[in-house]
Amino acid sequence: MTLSFTALTSALQINRSDAELLLATAARMEAAIQKDGGTDLAGGKVLAALFYEPSTRTRLSFETAMLRLGGKVISAEGVEFSSISKGETIEDTIRVVGGYADVIAMRHPQMGSADRAAAVSEVPFINAGDGPGQHPTQALLDLYTIQKERGGIEGVHIAMVGDLKFGRTVHSLTQLLSLFPSVRFTFVSPAALPMPEKVTNLLREKGIAYIETTDLKEGLQADVLYMTRVQKERFADAAEYERLKLAYILTADLLQGKQCTVMHPLPRVGEITEDVDALPAAAFFREAHNGVPMRMALIAHLLRLV
Amino acid sequence: MTLSFTALTSALQINRSDAELLLATAARMEAAIQKDGGTDLAGGKVLAALFYEPSTRTRLSFETAMLRLGGKVISAEGVEFSSISKGETIEDTIRVVGGYADVIAMRHPQMGSADRAAAVSEVPFINAGDGPGQHPTQALLDLYTIQKERGGIEGVHIAMVGDLKFGRTVHSLTQLLSLFPSVRFTFVSPAALPMPEKVTNLLREKGIAYIETTDLKEGLQADVLYMTRVQKERFADAAEYERLKLAYILTADLLQGKQCTVMHPLPRVGEITEDVDALPAAAFFREAHNGVPMRMALIAHLLRLV
Amino acid sequence: MTLSFTALTSALQINRSDAELLLATAARMEAAIQKDGGTDLAGGKVLAALFYEPSTRTRLSFETAMLRLGGKVISAEGVEFSSISKGETIEDTIRVVGGYADVIAMRHPQMGSADRAAAVSEVPFINAGDGPGQHPTQALLDLYTIQKERGGIEGVHIAMVGDLKFGRTVHSLTQLLSLFPSVRFTFVSPAALPMPEKVTNLLREKGIAYIETTDLKEGLQADVLYMTRVQKERFADAAEYERLKLAYILTADLLQGKQCTVMHPLPRVGEITEDVDALPAAAFFREAHNGVPMRMALIAHLLRLV
Repeated sequence: MTLSFTALTSALQINRSDAELLLATAARMEAAIQKDGGTDLAGGKVLAALFYEPSTRTRLSFETAMLRLGGKVISAEGVEFSSISKGETIEDTIRVVGGYADVIAMRHPQMGSADRAAAVSEVPFINAGDGPGQHPTQALLDLYTIQKERGGIEGVHIAMVGDLKFGRTVHSLTQLLSLFPSVRFTFVSPAALPMPEKVTNLLREKGIAYIETTDLKEGLQADVLYMTRVQKERFADAAEYERLKLAYILTADLLQGKQCTVMHPLPRVGEITEDVDALPAAAFFREAHNGVPMRMALIAHLLRLV
Repeated sequence: MTLSFTALTSALQINRSDAELLLATAARMEAAIQKDGGTDLAGGKVLAALFYEPSTRTRLSFETAMLRLGGKVISAEGVEFSSISKGETIEDTIRVVGGYADVIAMRHPQMGSADRAAAVSEVPFINAGDGPGQHPTQALLDLYTIQKERGGIEGVHIAMVGDLKFGRTVHSLTQLLSLFPSVRFTFVSPAALPMPEKVTNLLREKGIAYIETTDLKEGLQADVLYMTRVQKERFADAAEYERLKLAYILTADLLQGKQCTVMHPLPRVGEITEDVDALPAAAFFREAHNGVPMRMALIAHLLRLV
Repeated sequence: MTLSFTALTSALQINRSDAELLLATAARMEAAIQKDGGTDLAGGKVLAALFYEPSTRTRLSFETAMLRLGGKVISAEGVEFSSISKGETIEDTIRVVGGYADVIAMRHPQMGSADRAAAVSEVPFINAGDGPGQHPTQALLDLYTIQKERGGIEGVHIAMVGDLKFGRTVHSLTQLLSLFPSVRFTFVSPAALPMPEKVTNLLREKGIAYIETTDLKEGLQADVLYMTRVQKERFADAAEYERLKLAYILTADLLQGKQCTVMHPLPRVGEITEDVDALPAAAFFREAHNGVPMRMALIAHLLRLV
């Protein structure tokens, strides 16, 4: 079986069959990591990790994935990227690097840059985040985490908490979860930072249930509590920010007697207190670790190695 | 057969036999990439890529070459290079890194730095560009590109266009092509930026024909049109720069009915319009890709693996 | 046999049995490098090199060690480290990266950061320098160098020269050498920069002989002369700095007729003149090279591969 795309720039490209294929392959990859540290499937293949803005966590996850697939990695990170300072277009850089590598993962601060790159890439291309745009592999690893932590995706009730207006990861994840119509959503956000209509419209079209609220306590009733940061720079009124920031801090106390799995795309900067870490429900580090087998699965399918 | 050098700092070191050996090995390396993604010749060997100034394209090309040879890579790029900020000499850095790696490729902003490094290196050394000095592997990959695109080097007529006075790549390539006395040259440049006498003297000594002109149209009669940037900072008079910049922009229109292969060391910043990209004559991306097999060939010979 | 620790943050953790085990394994690793370029022991294993401050020499040494062990490397260096700029704690970064990699080597500018990281790391952890704190692998490679250069550690007389008050490497090395009670010390430093009492107290407790002096010439009587930098910023009085700087410059002249092995953690910035380099006694570049087999030994034991 193969994926429906050769370049992944948006979670919207992923259909139900793609999602199930990637979930199944990720599980096999995770088993291979546990058993042998990885596989040799990608012998002779090279991944180029082009990070126009630093994102060490994501870059290391992609690189680990390729290495544990048995492949090799070339990598560039940061503003000192020389071809940029000489004025080269993203398109030309991709055309050149596509002659070095067999697959490209790119991070770039500008929304739309991933589509521009994918349009000219002669090798499989993965968007590793394009500014306020998409970050589809985060959504995929989140999906894999929900399946592992809850035993499946069907019927799961997920609460998303924080800045839902500007939060790239919650948009992509909601789009991906909408492939499973039995999933239910509770969106917990400040009134000024609700889930955008482009996302809620998608749910309405598909007849998927969702609730919008400003109260974190409503989210605690869900199976999965997906926490995100509320960013100070989104608020004109500093006092309003301070009030809301405190309203959306998850503590071990709040979780007492609850059954929900706690997720977070990380880094956290106070939204989840450290006393949560020791709870079995705290899945956010396991979530980060799941990025490796899921990215292995994605690369393996794009290179037609599985 | 072996190369006549163990450290390559200048195109002037390369003799006719070296050039033919590298061209032949590069072709074999390219075939190995097509077939298996590379070779295992360099198993157990380590390349150190020391880039004192960023040059992502060149660094990734060297690293890809070593990885596709079956070797391993250690790499450093950028101004934050710690040993520099602590005042260490290039010589000491090379002496230390030569105990880690089996071969070193170095990029450095100062002319002459490569010679200083090569003088103390206990392992094979490759100059990956020393400021306004030399960049011999660019010349080698250009030579390989001409051979592939035109079926051979002998008798080729090449036109070089742009800032020929300060352009490092056109000096090195002319020196290398002068090993083939049947090659003819047309040098197209602003009057103030001609090919330096040190280069034209070499051609005269060898009895090699060349023409100097300011007119791009004369260059269009050649078999190979080697475009380069005209850099604004070279001109005292901004109006003069604007006039010449426009004079040396290659478009698909200009190429109509011409048979020339278009090359460019990249990055381009306007000298070749995007409508040229789709023409069969547009060889500049293939040229960039040729850096991998040619650098594989060079490393393999320096390490005596072939 | 196994080491007494699973995370190495300080030379004080290393007992006599650990030291002997690592010295023996390092010698086997060095033989494997000479014979085959390394080993395949670490196939399927990944080292994460997390360098919060640049230290190219140390990073490349760790990376070379892992590659020559047959393992793979993921790497991050410099201030642009994205998770930091987003306010993530060291602990969270280590928890995440511990899910990617099998072993972590970390460099960080803050003293104590290595202990914080080791406390939460779920994989073996190595301190690659925590600011003014510890740098235990430098001490280990120095120990290995003394053994190789002098035929053993027992009975060696070592003179340490320079800023002994703030010099991290001389503290760690003295602590490590104190495992061998027959070793004797001469500490040569400006009066204002003596070896700290925490170190000399350790020697007194163990009944190990040491002499303190301000005169470099006394150091020249030792078997090993361990030179370090005297840093200008430690002096309130610039004239005093200039006087002492000159007092502690080692030249070939000073070494005439002496039998001592010259070591230096590098980079040197004038403490050892270049005419020393050609003397057989000049061991400082061999010392740097010894970092690779010693770090291979340490990683191999921490991963229980030997």
